[in-house]
This record gives sequence, structure tokens and C-alpha cells, in this order.
Amino acid sequence: MILQKNWHCKNDAPIGVFDSGVGGLTVAREIMRQLPDENMVYFGDTARVPYGSKSKDNIIRYSRQILRFLEQQQVKAIVIACNTASALALDVVHEEFDLPVIGVIEPGARAAVQATVNKKIGVVGTEATIRSEMYSRIVKRMDQAVAVIGKACPLFVPLVEEGFAKHKVTEDIIDYYLASMKCSGVDTMILGCTHYPLLRSKIRKYMGDEIAIVNPAYETAMDLKQILAERELANPGQRETASYEFYVSDAADKFKEFANSILPYDIATTRQVNIEEY
Amino acid sequence: MILQKNWHCKNDAPIGVFDSGVGGLTVAREIMRQLPDENMVYFGDTARVPYGSKSKDNIIRYSRQILRFLEQQQVKAIVIACNTASALALDVVHEEFDLPVIGVIEPGARAAVQATVNKKIGVVGTEATIRSEMYSRIVKRMDQAVAVIGKACPLFVPLVEEGFAKHKVTEDIIDYYLASMKCSGVDTMILGCTHYPLLRSKIRKYMGDEIAIVNPAYETAMDLKQILAERELANPGQRETASYEFYVSDAADKFKEFANSILPYDIATTRQVNIEEY
Repeated sequence: MILQKNWHCKNDAPIGVFDSGVGGLTVAREIMRQLPDENMVYFGDTARVPYGSKSKDNIIRYSRQILRFLEQQQVKAIVIACNTASALALDVVHEEFDLPVIGVIEPGARAAVQATVNKKIGVVGTEATIRSEMYSRIVKRMDQAVAVIGKACPLFVPLVEEGFAKHKVTEDIIDYYLASMKCSGVDTMILGCTHYPLLRSKIRKYMGDEIAIVNPAYETAMDLKQILAERELANPGQRETASYEFYVSDAADKFKEFANSILPYDIATTRQVNIEEY
Repeated sequence: MILQKNWHCKNDAPIGVFDSGVGGLTVAREIMRQLPDENMVYFGDTARVPYGSKSKDNIIRYSRQILRFLEQQQVKAIVIACNTASALALDVVHEEFDLPVIGVIEPGARAAVQATVNKKIGVVGTEATIRSEMYSRIVKRMDQAVAVIGKACPLFVPLVEEGFAKHKVTEDIIDYYLASMKCSGVDTMILGCTHYPLLRSKIRKYMGDEIAIVNPAYETAMDLKQILAERELANPGQRETASYEFYVSDAADKFKEFANSILPYDIATTRQVNIEEY
């Protein structure tokens, strides 16, 4: 059983952040940097990772369960840090909860539309994210004249998770996936999966310095900041005591190792939740 | 709702085969070859794949649910075609069901013990399989004098699933994982994951012709044949009309594509099951 904290008031309450696994920690890290006064509850769905190769129905079901869990943790807002869940489930689930729920796709798309000069944007992501064409739809809503070229790179996630981010084979696989993108004339590229920022330096080297690379994590954190301000939900000045809690659906030691390699401090404990009960 | 077939008698009833996803189709294929008179129900847990990075508790829970589902399909025997589930769950679950339930580890271990001359066996598999040391324990039970050297190769599964089995990068990753195995002096190597037979020719080329490579699928099919004979459960001479049914926990088109590339005929339909209900 998980004990509920009693927050003094709504402003005290944490931000809920969820991802299919560890990738969303790159978004959590950005929220910690940009909103250092906020408490956070992070949920990583390590029992059902990866989402990128699964169906829309299942992604919606998983997202609903996790949103219910986070709601029970009395969060004041929820960030769907996973691109696949943002692409496939956000539209459906955000109407079903009273809290503000934001994803990573709209902030990422906005940053890319602002960055592109030649109006050609590339998006890389999981199979499910690319197949959904959600980045393309949101970009077109912002600027009809922008062309979006998507490319699924399904091996990038296991390469990162298995510690191959700095390995030579990763360069060969980047070449395999991105050769056509490199020749397509895009001047801006969205890293449309939370794992991909961990391959950023290799992708940057391959694509060249003239391409603007957008990591939606920063933009998402800034959107969250604005929403909290608008709704008078921000937590004023308690950065010394900000609390971060980590929950997972499977007791994977790898989560802690990975978190400790990404976050600016070592996390002490992760707690396991049977997410199918929510 | 899934309609139940009425089998004429116990011998008519199908073999149940399950795997975390598509890998077990290499075992299903071997059963179709060696036991062409038998009907089969295959379940691929595509919603929760991969098992190799998940905890023992979850693998046991998943295996129980799938065994319950297969039991409802009135199967006469069950083959756990997944090495990870065989290593982590077989001991627990096979006592809980009235049917014969067999895994792939014991048949694979037996073939390797028979093949080795210098009594040094290598095993490659998922992280969970290798960490369990189940191959080692079963080999030692058969012959105390045999040394077993295990190596987890977690990228092999995504490489196969993403269609990189014939690609040059796979050779680099084989070298990365198997360099120490190659120098270890093993004369026999067990492909301890159902995906790995699909990398067999590249692994063979890397390890050299003098190494005996054991694919537990063949031995498992032969064990199943013997068990059916002993219990008078074999289905006599109906190979013209043998029926194969395929169930998955997520509607992944990839399953059908993959199945059609592995099996000697194209499968027409897969049916989706909400396995969390079992």
C-alpha cells in the first residue's frame, strides 16, 4: 500500500510525470531545471515498456491507468513525457481528467515551426509515433506551408537502453535510418522520442551543424511553467526541499541505474506499483 | 468472445505454445515439422514483450495468465517456448496445472551435454535468462563436470525484430557480445533465446565451424513427441487437416508479417485477447 502525503495546499502538490520507462527522465530532468521549486512524482511503466511497437488501444488503456494512479498521488498537473503516449492517447485522455494534462508533441512542434527557415522539418521517433502522423498534423495546424518528413528509428531505444549510445555501431545505425533524412533538405529536426536526446551528439555529428535539432523536453517544461502560472498553481520558493518520488511497474534495477546516469543526483529508492489495478 | 471448439477426444485437442512474442514461432515451426499431425494454439504476448528485461514476479504472473488462457482453449499439453519464461516461471507454474507443461531449457541443456566433448558449454540469452543461471543449474544436474559460461546479448532480440538479421551492424554487435565467448574454449553453444536461431548463420560464421550450436527448438519438439506418446495423447494421422490458431495480446501487424516470414505458409488471421483478464 502506498501512503498518501497530505499536501498543505494545491500549490504544494507535485507535478505528475509519466513515461513508458526511463526515457521520460530526460523530460523530468528539464522540469527539475526549469521549475526547481516544484515537487514531482514520476511513473515509469517498466513492466510494459516499450510503447513504440504497441497498438493505440493498449497505449490509451495504459495511459488511463497511469493517469488514475497519478491522480491518486494528488498531483496538480500531469506531463505525458512519452512521445508515443502523447501522440496516441493525449487527445482521448485529457478530456477525462480534471487536471491539466500536457504532452510533449505540441511544445516540440511549436519549437520546430519557430526554428525552420526553409519550412522543411524532419521528425524521428518510434514506429507508433511516426505512424500516427501527430507531429505532422500539429505542425500543419500551426503553419500549413511547412512540410514534415517522418522517420521511425525503432533500434534507437534499445541501443540507448543497452548502453550503446557512445558505441561505433550506433553510428552505422544512425546512417541506416537517417541517410534519406540527410538528403531531404530539412533544416530542422525534432527528436520525437525521449530516448533520442541521449544520442544527440552522434545525431548532430551525422546531420551536420547547419540543422537545428529540437528536443521537446525544454519546450514542454516551459509550457508547464506557463500553465502553472496562469492557473496560480506554481509552488513559490521551496527549492531547497523539493521532493521527487519515483514509481515503476516492474522492479527493474536498470531503472535506478539509468536514472542515476541521467539525473543530476542519485535517486535513493523506487517503489513498485501494480498498475493493472488502476 | 472467443468460441471454444469441441474436440472429438483428448487426442484431437491442440498443443498450446506460448512465447513473449514472435520468437517462439521458431519452436512452433519445429513442432509443426516434427509433429505434423498435431493441432496447435499459439499465444504471443505482444502487449508485454519483451520479457528478457523484466522481473521474475511479473514473468510468473504473465505465464500463469497465459496458461489459464490456453487451458480454456482445451489444449492437451503446453510448451513454454520462451527461454525467459522457461527459466523463471516453469518450476512454479507446472505444479499448478493438470496438463503436461514443458519448457525449452531442459531439452536444450540435454542436447548440449550430449554434444560437448571438452565439457565447456556456452549459453547466450536474454538478461533475465542468463541472470537466472537456469541453464547452468540444469546442465550441472546432468553432468557436474561441465562448465557453463553465460552471456546476455540483449540487443539480439531488437535486431531480429527490426529486420537487421542480415545487416552488417549485426556482425559488429555479435563481435561485441561474443568476443570473450570465442576465446573461452567452449566447444558447444546453446542459443538460449528463441530469436537467436534467426541469427544462426552469422553466429556460426563468427564462432567458427568447430563449435556445435544447439537450438533447443528441435529437442523440445522431440521431448513433446515422447510425452504425448507416453501419455497416449498423440493425434494419429490427420496431417492434411491439422489446424493452427494464433492469438496475440496486442494487435501488432508485425506479428503476422514476422510469422509469415518464419512459418512455411502464410497465416490468415490472428485474434486478440485481453490477457490481463485471465
